[in-house]
Amino acid sequence: MSQQQTWSQRFESSLHPAIAIFNASIGFDIELIEYDLTGSIAHARMLGRTGIISPQEAEQLTAGLEQIRQEYNSGQFTPGVEAEDVHFAVERRLTEIVGDVGKKLHTARSRNDQVGTDIRLYLRAQIQQICTHIRQFQQVLLQLAEQNVETLIPGYTHLQRAQPLSLAHHLLAYFQMLQRDWDRLKDVYKRVNISPLGSGALAGTTFPIDRHYTAELLEFDGVYANSLDGVSDRDFAIEFACAASIIMVHLSRLSEEVILWSSEEFSFVKLKDSCATGSSIMPQKKNPDVPELVRGKTGRVCGHLQGLLMLMKGLPLAYNKDLQEDKEALFDTVKTVKACLEAMAILFQEGLEFRTTRLAEAVAEDFSNATDVADYLAARGVPFREAYNLVGKVVKTSLAAGKLLKDLTIQEWQELHPAFAEDIYEAIAPRQVVAARNSYGGTGFAQVEKAIAIARTQLEAN
Amino acid sequence: MSQQQTWSQRFESSLHPAIAIFNASIGFDIELIEYDLTGSIAHARMLGRTGIISPQEAEQLTAGLEQIRQEYNSGQFTPGVEAEDVHFAVERRLTEIVGDVGKKLHTARSRNDQVGTDIRLYLRAQIQQICTHIRQFQQVLLQLAEQNVETLIPGYTHLQRAQPLSLAHHLLAYFQMLQRDWDRLKDVYKRVNISPLGSGALAGTTFPIDRHYTAELLEFDGVYANSLDGVSDRDFAIEFACAASIIMVHLSRLSEEVILWSSEEFSFVKLKDSCATGSSIMPQKKNPDVPELVRGKTGRVCGHLQGLLMLMKGLPLAYNKDLQEDKEALFDTVKTVKACLEAMAILFQEGLEFRTTRLAEAVAEDFSNATDVADYLAARGVPFREAYNLVGKVVKTSLAAGKLLKDLTIQEWQELHPAFAEDIYEAIAPRQVVAARNSYGGTGFAQVEKAIAIARTQLEAN
Amino acid sequence: MSQQQTWSQRFESSLHPAIAIFNASIGFDIELIEYDLTGSIAHARMLGRTGIISPQEAEQLTAGLEQIRQEYNSGQFTPGVEAEDVHFAVERRLTEIVGDVGKKLHTARSRNDQVGTDIRLYLRAQIQQICTHIRQFQQVLLQLAEQNVETLIPGYTHLQRAQPLSLAHHLLAYFQMLQRDWDRLKDVYKRVNISPLGSGALAGTTFPIDRHYTAELLEFDGVYANSLDGVSDRDFAIEFACAASIIMVHLSRLSEEVILWSSEEFSFVKLKDSCATGSSIMPQKKNPDVPELVRGKTGRVCGHLQGLLMLMKGLPLAYNKDLQEDKEALFDTVKTVKACLEAMAILFQEGLEFRTTRLAEAVAEDFSNATDVADYLAARGVPFREAYNLVGKVVKTSLAAGKLLKDLTIQEWQELHPAFAEDIYEAIAPRQVVAARNSYGGTGFAQVEKAIAIARTQLEAN
Amino acid sequence: MSQQQTWSQRFESSLHPAIAIFNASIGFDIELIEYDLTGSIAHARMLGRTGIISPQEAEQLTAGLEQIRQEYNSGQFTPGVEAEDVHFAVERRLTEIVGDVGKKLHTARSRNDQVGTDIRLYLRAQIQQICTHIRQFQQVLLQLAEQNVETLIPGYTHLQRAQPLSLAHHLLAYFQMLQRDWDRLKDVYKRVNISPLGSGALAGTTFPIDRHYTAELLEFDGVYANSLDGVSDRDFAIEFACAASIIMVHLSRLSEEVILWSSEEFSFVKLKDSCATGSSIMPQKKNPDVPELVRGKTGRVCGHLQGLLMLMKGLPLAYNKDLQEDKEALFDTVKTVKACLEAMAILFQEGLEFRTTRLAEAVAEDFSNATDVADYLAARGVPFREAYNLVGKVVKTSLAAGKLLKDLTIQEWQELHPAFAEDIYEAIAPRQVVAARNSYGGTGFAQVEKAIAIARTQLEAN
Repeated sequence: MSQQQTWSQRFESSLHPAIAIFNASIGFDIELIEYDLTGSIAHARMLGRTGIISPQEAEQLTAGLEQIRQEYNSGQFTPGVEAEDVHFAVERRLTEIVGDVGKKLHTARSRNDQVGTDIRLYLRAQIQQICTHIRQFQQVLLQLAEQNVETLIPGYTHLQRAQPLSLAHHLLAYFQMLQRDWDRLKDVYKRVNISPLGSGALAGTTFPIDRHYTAELLEFDGVYANSLDGVSDRDFAIEFACAASIIMVHLSRLSEEVILWSSEEFSFVKLKDSCATGSSIMPQKKNPDVPELVRGKTGRVCGHLQGLLMLMKGLPLAYNKDLQEDKEALFDTVKTVKACLEAMAILFQEGLEFRTTRLAEAVAEDFSNATDVADYLAARGVPFREAYNLVGKVVKTSLAAGKLLKDLTIQEWQELHPAFAEDIYEAIAPRQVVAARNSYGGTGFAQVEKAIAIARTQLEAN
Repeated sequence: MSQQQTWSQRFESSLHPAIAIFNASIGFDIELIEYDLTGSIAHARMLGRTGIISPQEAEQLTAGLEQIRQEYNSGQFTPGVEAEDVHFAVERRLTEIVGDVGKKLHTARSRNDQVGTDIRLYLRAQIQQICTHIRQFQQVLLQLAEQNVETLIPGYTHLQRAQPLSLAHHLLAYFQMLQRDWDRLKDVYKRVNISPLGSGALAGTTFPIDRHYTAELLEFDGVYANSLDGVSDRDFAIEFACAASIIMVHLSRLSEEVILWSSEEFSFVKLKDSCATGSSIMPQKKNPDVPELVRGKTGRVCGHLQGLLMLMKGLPLAYNKDLQEDKEALFDTVKTVKACLEAMAILFQEGLEFRTTRLAEAVAEDFSNATDVADYLAARGVPFREAYNLVGKVVKTSLAAGKLLKDLTIQEWQELHPAFAEDIYEAIAPRQVVAARNSYGGTGFAQVEKAIAIARTQLEAN
Repeated sequence: MSQQQTWSQRFESSLHPAIAIFNASIGFDIELIEYDLTGSIAHARMLGRTGIISPQEAEQLTAGLEQIRQEYNSGQFTPGVEAEDVHFAVERRLTEIVGDVGKKLHTARSRNDQVGTDIRLYLRAQIQQICTHIRQFQQVLLQLAEQNVETLIPGYTHLQRAQPLSLAHHLLAYFQMLQRDWDRLKDVYKRVNISPLGSGALAGTTFPIDRHYTAELLEFDGVYANSLDGVSDRDFAIEFACAASIIMVHLSRLSEEVILWSSEEFSFVKLKDSCATGSSIMPQKKNPDVPELVRGKTGRVCGHLQGLLMLMKGLPLAYNKDLQEDKEALFDTVKTVKACLEAMAILFQEGLEFRTTRLAEAVAEDFSNATDVADYLAARGVPFREAYNLVGKVVKTSLAAGKLLKDLTIQEWQELHPAFAEDIYEAIAPRQVVAARNSYGGTGFAQVEKAIAIARTQLEAN
Repeated sequence: MSQQQTWSQRFESSLHPAIAIFNASIGFDIELIEYDLTGSIAHARMLGRTGIISPQEAEQLTAGLEQIRQEYNSGQFTPGVEAEDVHFAVERRLTEIVGDVGKKLHTARSRNDQVGTDIRLYLRAQIQQICTHIRQFQQVLLQLAEQNVETLIPGYTHLQRAQPLSLAHHLLAYFQMLQRDWDRLKDVYKRVNISPLGSGALAGTTFPIDRHYTAELLEFDGVYANSLDGVSDRDFAIEFACAASIIMVHLSRLSEEVILWSSEEFSFVKLKDSCATGSSIMPQKKNPDVPELVRGKTGRVCGHLQGLLMLMKGLPLAYNKDLQEDKEALFDTVKTVKACLEAMAILFQEGLEFRTTRLAEAVAEDFSNATDVADYLAARGVPFREAYNLVGKVVKTSLAAGKLLKDLTIQEWQELHPAFAEDIYEAIAPRQVVAARNSYGGTGFAQVEKAIAIARTQLEAN
């Protein structure tokens, strides 16, 4: 690395080559170049407007920075490791383009507030994209729900058959999780979209800058109230990583279900060829690789969250070089979450098919209507716990006899308890069992229709 | 464990004793009893109001539950491991007190929505308490800031002296972090304070319950739109654990600083005896145990966050017994964060004293005014990067000569660059170096006064 | 807290009561008292033997310490929070019992090396107990394997039926994981069982102590070579927590399988009443709480590991109070791992029953013999990749026709490829499919018998 | 992606392009190509030797695979995303080169055991490289220790001056941590270097393979005893990630110390220009970027460990696609640990200089000799706890009087306790304070010389 470092005048000898590579962030922070240029342009315009530099100088800087943007986008500008980081790379190229005025760009600014600005501009754009991905996946789930209000599916607790459900109700549970993810990202966004620009190295600056003006140009919602906090805060990264981790947890749960559903034993869904893969050795295999990978990537994202928390633990104020490590974790988190949301949306849109016949059979062949018998009695005045115990006994004897509840005769019901009448058969038929859970938010069809309408409204917010 | 389980009618033999102990949560979920009783009372009142049970029965249940509250508070009611969990313990005791009507309490409810309700009632109360602790610590920091606007302290980046600061400015950085913690908890609270009650086991219920009424009685802000989501959602616990982890990261950073400041080398603060401890063997020692413990407890809280994320990964809908593991993690997180906030507030209120003479000497004896020289030239038209390089050289030669910048003669300044005049000495005096950083959010005294006023206003919100 | 701190002479005022509570570890480190007494007795004997104190004094100390052990075991000695920690609690009680000679116990020792000794003595005992639990569970699995060599069970990859297995082979996979856990703990043990005693506060001591003698008395395998390392090392705690996390990961995988197997859809096992629990509302439910809880506790243990790593990050030498936080994480890790190993052993010993009829049907009704057709051809000279592709086609057409491979006529086979002969039917019968995988470590019955013999031998090591 | 998937015969339509990209691992698993080729060559040789294919075929395959190695190394073979993964990429290229015989390579093998083999071959090579890096860094520390036996440095507990140390002793503490890292990696290696090859997809194979022969060719120390375990075990990755995390924790502690030492306040070391960097705005700055980055990267590595644990949690046997996620975490862990060890070795070899004059002054100006006064009395029969309390008082009065212990007159000493004589001055001189801690593993110079000799011996092991 023959080229001198920008900060080298106080230094007599140059960096050890291995250390230069170890320190350099250009290999990954080049991903920020678009935001770095945008931030620098706002800074230059502010310098001109406040008279810190002349209007002409501000224009030269702006033009030069826009030229770098073009050069980068067209592949002409490709800074290497000798540039140390994207900020120095841009400043140097700028000085090549516009001459000495380029050396004025960094007036009243430090890399500390600069990189903080870049990363926030990056992250807010990414949050918006992730929100869009969430919306798209919600849309897919909602459409599928609309088509499956009347499709029944076993509902589980402890992975044991519990009570039958409308498939739409099951899908809408995930819709609501995603809705919460969307809401949460909106809250995170509030704390991401604050400008640290003008915090200087740590203490502000002696120049008469206008932080509110740069914030306005960059469409930030506010400015950091304290310069030390401005350059050393990475809460927003942690908070985002947590929101991303929760998204992944949601997707991992749905993935687990798809994997179960596509097993031979469940056979609730059929994977389509466009979203499944085979084995290298077993010719019959059709594997649910998408949900498996999504489930697997959950650890990766949660690992980044822990990495960020550990990164920040115990760091004294203000900026420390450790903070450079926030970027790769953020970049990979963003990339992973976007890819997983997209893959899951494709999977549900065109990659699987619910086997409705199999589902209909499933809900008719178990004891998941037992609660309804207890409810039947409780509604007729038997204390619930007594009713529950009575039904527990019937289940036990029926299991022993190899019978289901629907197979009991009316005499058998009435021996059990005189409150039973012929309508017990209707009460425990799967469709009725679902329909009857008509409490708010329940799986009853009327409720599900209402829930779909609410979901439709929720989707409209942006 | 001779006593029969509440759910034992379908079961022929009783639990293996070791398994009964392994499964039981009463050892820790007894901490929820207050909330369990409150939730059950609301449920009973709703059952009465909707006619699912008679008004008299509802009153009997309510009275019985209130009696259990008194018995518990007075130490008369102490359920053991045979109770399995707090919910069954209460239901059994209730039936002892009120007789068979007690068996009606669980009508139209499941432990799944019940425990979800309890944990949310618990957590929202704890969030409020944590917010109060945050406010108290902010108050302490703000008072200290008000007393130390004019106290100078070295400011650091990379733990190298960077630029001198107003001590108030440094303290206010933490005030703002805590403000963000407070804001974040308010956002978390929105998602905690939603009622799952009435979600049933997973699918809602066949009874004509009124979920909005119980939500109103319990002062929830809304109800879960989807019953499956209602019983299986633990996002709020993860999100809270993340907010708690960020609080701990903030406290760990401040702790690190106190530890540094109280070292022989820094000697910026003196620990008072009331908040320091000694060694068992070294008679001279006075150790900053409080900030060390706080820093150490950061890992514990972040570990709980990771535990919760891992807990939820890949769980199919709806409720799974795994969820029982959310409680101890939450309880310990709450306890730890409250204790640490309290300890830090005490430490700053009465446990340490800034050594102002030492601080004043410190800021006068280094090169942390070098940026001001570069700014001096830049303000006189020298491109910043050139000015920066010039000053880099002076620093190098001064260091070699064992001089500080204030020791340079005016001739030496002018040889360096003709723009220097006598006012350079004023410009680089520590007080002026601080005062001059008068940009918004900067350390300039005028800005700090403004920041204190803003902080005062922020404290008023609740 | 009226009682003076042991270290209070240099201090003028006493601890703030809330800080005293915050700092105190007696609430949990009392768990170490047995090891603290043992360690102190060894130290006292060494002091006497080296002449640092007189032999009579050493005897007095030893007798006093043994008396405390009895007092503690009989419930007479119950130190409260005023004792700060278990070490001071013991030293004070000792001085009450033996008078001024008690004040000599701490000669040539610091709490730093003392607590390090205690925690290592504790952990090595716990590792031995965990190893015993592992052995017991391996024993249960091995017995079950011996009974089920000929029981077939579907084998899965991607949770898709892949190739049928001997159930014994499946169980032995977990046996081998546990064997690795056992081996790993033995390696951890080597680094746990090293004595830090005699490291002093950080630098060793001026007294002519004999560290090898105390190490020998305490049955340590060696002594720390560097006193700074001796008091500040917590690698062994992290390494143990990692080994514990891996055990939990193994148990979580097996738990997941039991949960799947006990679902209605799989129905591979029947849970017995002694190890299953019911629902509070659904009378038919029988839930696999044990494996669910075990799976859930995995996050808890891994969270402790992360907590310990974060605890240690960035701590300067030597001892820091942060290290006090190692204990609760370790104690809970130990308790959790032991409880989970025990619960799983009970579950497999008496809590579940494999449904062999259902398993036999399962392996006969799928395409998990497809690889055997490809292998059949490959063994007759068809390049494997070609054979694989051919079989892929048959599977596709069979699926479309609703047929299994065993339903194809010999003509159909021969149309597919002339190499097929009548023996194809034998080759694809489930029992033969299993038997044929007779490669070392494979599921072929002969291999499984061999594997059982090897496992039997592995169990003998201690 | 126009090219057909290798497994496509059972599939009617091709993968969705976005899903193909989502699933593909070629982007990162190309890093394994060297090991994949080596593993395939061993497999091919075994197939030939056992007669599963002819010797000529085996030779053709071997030659083809070696040709691919050359093509890859010379940049001619660059498979794209259409290859799905490195294994298919190689198999296809092989078939292009050697024709139909290439289709025989995958006989008796699955990607499941193949990738397991590759990753273990990769990791064992990397562990060896990391061990070499550890040895190099230990060498640097040992040389520095040898040069600094007589250099004194303050020793700390709680970051408070505790007792002075030989600098060599301090450096050797890290030497011993690294020694433990080395030992631990050797233990991990034992569990990495086991061959899964021949486990097939999950159940072994019907072909008469020789697993011990491939293991021997690949220099594995053993073979997996159970095929299911062989393809689904990732313990070794977790265990390695934990060992790597502990290395990073060690480096983070040393980094923290270098950062402290290079601060203005400590000034114990001077950073050389070759290993320090400047600020973009503050001309005087010289920042310890290397140790800051190393400290920051600790979170990253520990995050990967958590990611891997979470990845494995709850996965049923045998192979699941989730496992694909092990690679990037491992690759980044390896890369990070190697880079950090190398950077720290350079830093200590040529990047910093201890300021010995400053260090000598530091140890003479505090109360870190107070324990020696207590020991002085204890050695003369005063019970240690009494001596300790007496000295506590002297420290308090001396502090108040602005004196150090060496400033007390002999009268003052004797007033304190008659046992004091003139030799007290000698006993509390820094050099003697260090020399006197002559217990095994202590900082006494004689001990340090011994420790250096031991370290020299430890370095010889390989």
